[in-house]
Formats: sequence, structure tokens, C-alpha cells
Amino acid sequence: MLPFARVTIIGLGLIGSSIARAVRETMPTVRLTGHDASAEVREIARRLDLLDDVTDTAGAAVTDAELVILCVPVGAMGAVAAEIAADLPAEAIVSDVGSSKESVAKALREALPGAIVVPAHPVAGTEQSGPEAGFASLFHGRWCIVTPLADGDAVAAARVGEFWRRLGSNVETMAPDHHDRVLAITSHLPHLIAYTIVGTANDLAEVTESEVIKFSAGGFRDFTRIAASDPTMWRDVFLTNKEAVLEMLQRFSEDLSQLQRAIRWGDGDTLFEHFTQTRAIRRSIVDQGQDDAAADFGRKHD
Amino acid sequence: MLPFARVTIIGLGLIGSSIARAVRETMPTVRLTGHDASAEVREIARRLDLLDDVTDTAGAAVTDAELVILCVPVGAMGAVAAEIAADLPAEAIVSDVGSSKESVAKALREALPGAIVVPAHPVAGTEQSGPEAGFASLFHGRWCIVTPLADGDAVAAARVGEFWRRLGSNVETMAPDHHDRVLAITSHLPHLIAYTIVGTANDLAEVTESEVIKFSAGGFRDFTRIAASDPTMWRDVFLTNKEAVLEMLQRFSEDLSQLQRAIRWGDGDTLFEHFTQTRAIRRSIVDQGQDDAAADFGRKHD
Repeated sequence: MLPFARVTIIGLGLIGSSIARAVRETMPTVRLTGHDASAEVREIARRLDLLDDVTDTAGAAVTDAELVILCVPVGAMGAVAAEIAADLPAEAIVSDVGSSKESVAKALREALPGAIVVPAHPVAGTEQSGPEAGFASLFHGRWCIVTPLADGDAVAAARVGEFWRRLGSNVETMAPDHHDRVLAITSHLPHLIAYTIVGTANDLAEVTESEVIKFSAGGFRDFTRIAASDPTMWRDVFLTNKEAVLEMLQRFSEDLSQLQRAIRWGDGDTLFEHFTQTRAIRRSIVDQGQDDAAADFGRKHD
Repeated sequence: MLPFARVTIIGLGLIGSSIARAVRETMPTVRLTGHDASAEVREIARRLDLLDDVTDTAGAAVTDAELVILCVPVGAMGAVAAEIAADLPAEAIVSDVGSSKESVAKALREALPGAIVVPAHPVAGTEQSGPEAGFASLFHGRWCIVTPLADGDAVAAARVGEFWRRLGSNVETMAPDHHDRVLAITSHLPHLIAYTIVGTANDLAEVTESEVIKFSAGGFRDFTRIAASDPTMWRDVFLTNKEAVLEMLQRFSEDLSQLQRAIRWGDGDTLFEHFTQTRAIRRSIVDQGQDDAAADFGRKHD
């Protein structure tokens, strides 16, 4: 039996449009309704025939929904939830895909008092944005973290988990605040670092931009992928998961200072020891199917 | 006409063995001789039939060479050059593949007074090591930077450039000190940052290693690839390109502090503006063929 017969997606960018495609592929009888704040995006979604109905207002999209998934930047969650409040059926479950969860849980609870809220976060994505960048297999073999509220509806959380399993995800459940600490180190800090170093390279006068681009295969290009991610989404993530990000950043800075000191003093043993430990982590990530084993990310070498 | 008829490769790891394979493929009449300090690596190279002759000493490998390429960690260049000094033909050109160039140029000149030295650096590689990790197309479409000495032999430098073009590389020429500054930002700093953040994640007690690995698709896994690179090679790079690395690190730390401050004070405009600029760099790297255009590095989704 399907976890939901009528699903509404608000926000039809990379993630929202990928959910639509994945639902079509794995649960073709589900009635899919959607909305996006951008008229241009709605037009593209209609042209691509991603959903059964694309409505011009958020409220119209949710009137008979069983599950509503908000796929908008985390800073916009509260406003979008307020937009659907009047039309949301009492028994509908409201979920989301945001990358920070405590702030989203709070925003949804405030905007939708009494509604059944089950925040969630599929840990999947690419550096591209928009409805045309989505694809049905984006969630295959990736984790989706469901973060039920402490006083939330357990059956609703289980149904949301089942929905994500149908899309091909592995589902994990944890509290919103623990989620935010885990993602601060596995996702938010890496993005911040990548954004920083790409900016640093761009500001160098003596090393030209064309040299940075030409010789990026030496390592730099690996950082540029995630530094090409959606700016609005990431601005919101850093502002809404501030405490955890700042703490991880502090730890990172201390560790960087230690290696900096080792370089300055020519302490090769400290460097060697550190560099040896980090190899094992990569191996585990590949072993557990979270990345390609192929060298160089499987980039084509002819 | 071939730039060299007899080529010797000292050090048969990822880069050395890839050169051997590429020479076999593109210049099959070249006589290839090689040596590695490790008996095990020599045995593997013989079994894989990578070269016409694998000798048990470095000296024996160079006796009739026209081009000798040292493919060892940059900290070992001086010692290996000293080993071949007595057997090196006077007209032979000695080159290398090291990632820092001023220190290598100095080490080679000191160990081989009077020899024709043309340092070079193919900006190519993977996170894997050893003779079995090499492949012939590693240098295709990648840059090779030739860094002739100020008082060096221009004809020799041109021949080395032609050799790399035959292996499929694009060739650029610059002074060793400029090379070291360019690579400090495009390669050395990215590796240092990646090594650091992977270590930081590994040291967290509250977020378990298994959580870091599970949810690495959120961005972290992109860093683990280069943090899995060869520890000896990278220790030597940081110790031999200390000044440029420390300077780039200083700039990076200042930029990171600026973003940190924006997060702490909730300055979304500064974050958004910064994140918008970095997208353009990624586009240029893809446009110039230095990385795959496919989303997510073209990782398989299925």
C-alpha cells in the first residue's frame, strides 16, 4: 500500500522536481500537485509535465493533499507555511527537505499551529539548480534523515520514512538538534570552506584567474563543484544553523593552525601522521557506497 | 621525429608508471628503462611489463639515457639525483615531475653540477598510488608546466615540452618561483584544507565516524578524495613550498574570518554576494575542459 495517494510539492527546483520525477517513476498512481513562487519555473514544470497539476498559488496546491513537502530555501519555510495554512487539510502531513532542521521545525510549528509536522532532509543534491536539473534517481542509495519533533506524531513520521524509502533512499531518524550538528561537519562546513577558498583564489592579483582555472586539476577543481551550489539556499543554511557551524569552524581553525605550525617549523612527522589517518576515511566512504571507488571521482580520462 | 629515443624513469609509482604506459602507447619505439627504490615495486613493474628494462640500481637505469625523469617525492629528489650522478651521460637531460619547483631545481643543480636540468610538473594525478594505479591517458588534456632554470638550456626545455605534448598534455612554461605560487593556491592549499577538515571530522566525539561517513554525500566526500592522496608526497610538498603555502593560508584564513563574522552577525547579504561570485569560477573550469560538466562530477546515480 502506498504511504500517500496525493502529494503536493511546494518549490520545484532541483530537489522538488527530482521528487516529482521519482514519485512518477516509483509510485505512478500518486496524484502529484505542485507550486513554485516563480511563474517561469511553473511554466517549465508544466512544459516538462512533471506533475498532474501546477497551481498558481501555494494554497490551491494543498487543498486535498495527504503529504505536503516544502522544497524551498530554509529561510523561506515559515513564509511558505503561512501561505498554505488556511487551505491545509487537518489530516495532512507537512514535511520539508531543508538542510537545517531545528530552525525549520520551529518555523513550521509557529506558522502551522496544530498541523502534523515531520521535518526531513534528503542528503542528496548536485551543484546545479532549477527544475531542469532534477532527475528521478537523485535519492537512490542516499540517506534521508527524518527528524520528528519530540512531541510529534510517530505514525506520520513512519509514513514519511516509507515515502523516502520508495524513492530509493535509506532512512535514518534523529532529533533535529543532533541532525544540525552532524550536517554542520559533513555538509555545512565543507561548503563554507569551499566557498572561501574559491573566493581567495579569485582575489589573487599575482596569480591570474586564467592560471587558477588552467591548473585547477591539481586539487582546486574538487572545491569548485560545491562552491557552485545555490547561493540563496546556502546563505539560509548558514544563518539558520549558526551555532553548530561556528563551533565546527572553530575546531577546524584550531586543527588548521596545528598543521600551519608544523609546516612553519618543518615538522614532517606531524604532517605525515595526519595525512596517513585521513586516507582511511576515504576508504570507508567508498566501502559504504557513499562515493565512487573509481580514481579521480571516475572522471573520464578518455 | 621523436624528442627522445631512450627514456629513463626513476620512481615507478602512479606518475612514473603512467608515463611509462603513455610512452609505450604514443612513442612505441622509445627504449624505456626504469628503476624504483622498492624491490616490490620493481617486481610489479616487471610483471606488468611497463618498461623494456627495470634495473636494480638507479645508476644502471641511466647509463645510456637521453632523458631521465625523476618521479619520486620532492624531498627525495636530491638523494636520487646524487645516486645517478656518476652514471649520467653528459648530454642527457634530467627532468622531474615534482609539485614544487624551486626546491627541486636547487636540489638537482646541487647534486648534478654541470648536468642539463629541466624541471617540469604535470598537473595530473589521482588519489591512488603505486605502479598498478597508473594509466596511459592520465596526462591527456592536462597541463604540464615546464620550469626552465634562468640560465638553462632552451633547446633542452623545448624537447622536454615536446615530450609532454606527445603524451597528450598541453605545455606551459614559467619560472620555478611563479610555478610555486600558482600551485600553492590551485593545489597545495586545497590539499592542506582537505586534510584538515577530514581530520577535524574524524576527531569529533559527539558526531560519530559512522555518521560522518553515512552523510558524507552532503559535501564532505568531495574533500576526502584529495585527502586520500599520498602522505609522503604531500609532506614533502608542504615542507619544500613553505613560504608560498603559508602566505596563501594566511589569505584564506582572513577570508574565512570574514565569512565567519557574517554568519555570527547574520549578515546574509555578504554571504549571498560571496556565494554568487564563486559559481562563475566553476563554469570557467568546465568551459575550459579542466573538469566534467556533468552534475556531481558525473558520479553514477544508479
